[in-house]
Amino acid sequence: MVLDVPFPQEASCDGDPVAGVPLSNFDHPPRAKLIIDTDPGIDDAMTMFMAFKSLELEVIGLTTIFGNGSTELVTRNALHLCEVAGLLDMPVAEGFSEPLKGGLPRVADFVHGSDGLGNTFPPDPKIKTVSKCAAEFLVDKIKEFPHEVTILALGPLTNIAGAIQKDPSFAKNVKKIFVLGGSFFASGNVNPAAEANIYGDPDAADIVFTSGADIVVIGINLTTQLKLTESDLLEIRDSKGAFGKYIYNMCVFYRNWHIESDGLNGIFLHDPGCLAALLDPSLFTYRKGALRVETQGICTGHTLLDLGLKKWNGVNPWSDQPLVSVGWTVNAQGVVNLVKDRLMRP
Amino acid sequence: MVLDVPFPQEASCDGDPVAGVPLSNFDHPPRAKLIIDTDPGIDDAMTMFMAFKSLELEVIGLTTIFGNGSTELVTRNALHLCEVAGLLDMPVAEGFSEPLKGGLPRVADFVHGSDGLGNTFPPDPKIKTVSKCAAEFLVDKIKEFPHEVTILALGPLTNIAGAIQKDPSFAKNVKKIFVLGGSFFASGNVNPAAEANIYGDPDAADIVFTSGADIVVIGINLTTQLKLTESDLLEIRDSKGAFGKYIYNMCVFYRNWHIESDGLNGIFLHDPGCLAALLDPSLFTYRKGALRVETQGICTGHTLLDLGLKKWNGVNPWSDQPLVSVGWTVNAQGVVNLVKDRLMRP
Repeated sequence: MVLDVPFPQEASCDGDPVAGVPLSNFDHPPRAKLIIDTDPGIDDAMTMFMAFKSLELEVIGLTTIFGNGSTELVTRNALHLCEVAGLLDMPVAEGFSEPLKGGLPRVADFVHGSDGLGNTFPPDPKIKTVSKCAAEFLVDKIKEFPHEVTILALGPLTNIAGAIQKDPSFAKNVKKIFVLGGSFFASGNVNPAAEANIYGDPDAADIVFTSGADIVVIGINLTTQLKLTESDLLEIRDSKGAFGKYIYNMCVFYRNWHIESDGLNGIFLHDPGCLAALLDPSLFTYRKGALRVETQGICTGHTLLDLGLKKWNGVNPWSDQPLVSVGWTVNAQGVVNLVKDRLMRP
Repeated sequence: MVLDVPFPQEASCDGDPVAGVPLSNFDHPPRAKLIIDTDPGIDDAMTMFMAFKSLELEVIGLTTIFGNGSTELVTRNALHLCEVAGLLDMPVAEGFSEPLKGGLPRVADFVHGSDGLGNTFPPDPKIKTVSKCAAEFLVDKIKEFPHEVTILALGPLTNIAGAIQKDPSFAKNVKKIFVLGGSFFASGNVNPAAEANIYGDPDAADIVFTSGADIVVIGINLTTQLKLTESDLLEIRDSKGAFGKYIYNMCVFYRNWHIESDGLNGIFLHDPGCLAALLDPSLFTYRKGALRVETQGICTGHTLLDLGLKKWNGVNPWSDQPLVSVGWTVNAQGVVNLVKDRLMRP
């Protein structure tokens, strides 16, 4: 029996948001098995480093997906980042190169640089991907360790939807899926309606959210409250953190984009914020409800949660759907402290 | 020059919400010309009575639209309500019987009763509609009194979109349009995505919101904060208000539905809340932004406002659209007081 990464059992769909239960036994093995589905991506890289330095986690593989760059590019980056971390045996499985419905993926190179890592142009990695594609890798690992593997999903949900489509038992056998995606009762970041990860493959997201898996979603309505300032970045750079200088250099481009786009001399902690919810759920409160994604029209990619505040007249697309937990409030300083702690570990 | 019904000129799309400017010269003629586009409907009827008792307003006509009942039914109700108020010469123009795209209109008889007036089953009216249809009536009145006529839109926006389509100068010549509709960064009331008026004709709503007219939208995210309790209703019934008993009797069915649907022993002040914004804009604060309506998919009828908080990368459906003012916060007690004051006038 592996360590439980707890989550509020009592999260409610008809009352006040409910706080998560803190992980009480940090730093005690056995470690919780984790697969990171990722599109590195600057904040993905930070999150990978955080996870690698989290003793309560055992990262058993990475799966890659387009988003902050093409799947080919972010796969290369994932391999490179494993090399930086000295994890030469980390399984990296390459994911789909396009959304479920096909077509060119949207790529946020204007946010993460043409190399996906802040135009630091790292060397070609020497290590290689595993032969399985991401969806196969996910299916096989969840079969190998039923109810033991948590997935941290930091990009479009194409691989996870693919795994659900491949294996009807996947949703019930995955322990938990933490998703960085969506914006709840707040503006998107691609356009007023949509957040980038969900916009990247809205059909996949709708499949995942309605799959019945145990899902926690952290939206950018919360992660835009999580700011690492230039001063924080300098502190990380000058710390004994194993990846401090690497992170700082990578973040220069990212921070400049935040200044231009959001008037913030710093960066939002999107992906790291989602890992923080996994590591310490007590930093957030949550609401439970049916969650659907618009796949058509001007609101394509919009995430809409039924808060359960009202008895509907008749059925609608949210009726009788499984409930997911959505982050509702966040202790922003607590998350910033946790992120800095992990990133400043030697 | 008619009395100005003021609205905050400085409502901002990039800062704090801005409070409206109070109407300083209540009760002084000349009165502001108003057309009520309405689907009575219980809260429509209350709003009509409020307007009839507001000395600063001159109601120059009613136009009818499906919503709380079929157009045929609500037209009958509008005529009946004019008779109740003794306004036998009030022009009533019948509106479209279906949404712009055609098809059976959605009718909220489960909220307002099969007669649209709380199953009080009023007698057939003796007065008749004018010969013009609603869109023609609107076009002609705005041509007759350019920049002088305000429209209070309490139902689906089909008639107003029809007027805009008929007359290219309509949007710039109407003084202001107050819309009760949508839900902003909050749940709908038809389903989690959509509010009933906008859901009733989302194509029409999108035409109106992008028309360039001077528009104020009050959503149910605010009007569900405006509650008239059973005790308030009894106070109105037992007051010297000209329509107190009529209103109370009509509201029994409506209140029972609120108990069932929302757990509220009272009623929400949807339409009256929108008239309150017209009568006293200082009861609300506002945000200005581009406002679009989803016309496809599971979020059909969803209203999405660009808050202008972020510089978008590239163009999107909100880019370069005219700005509308959307109610952001409300002084709920102030609105309740205003509504009760108007409804208790002899």
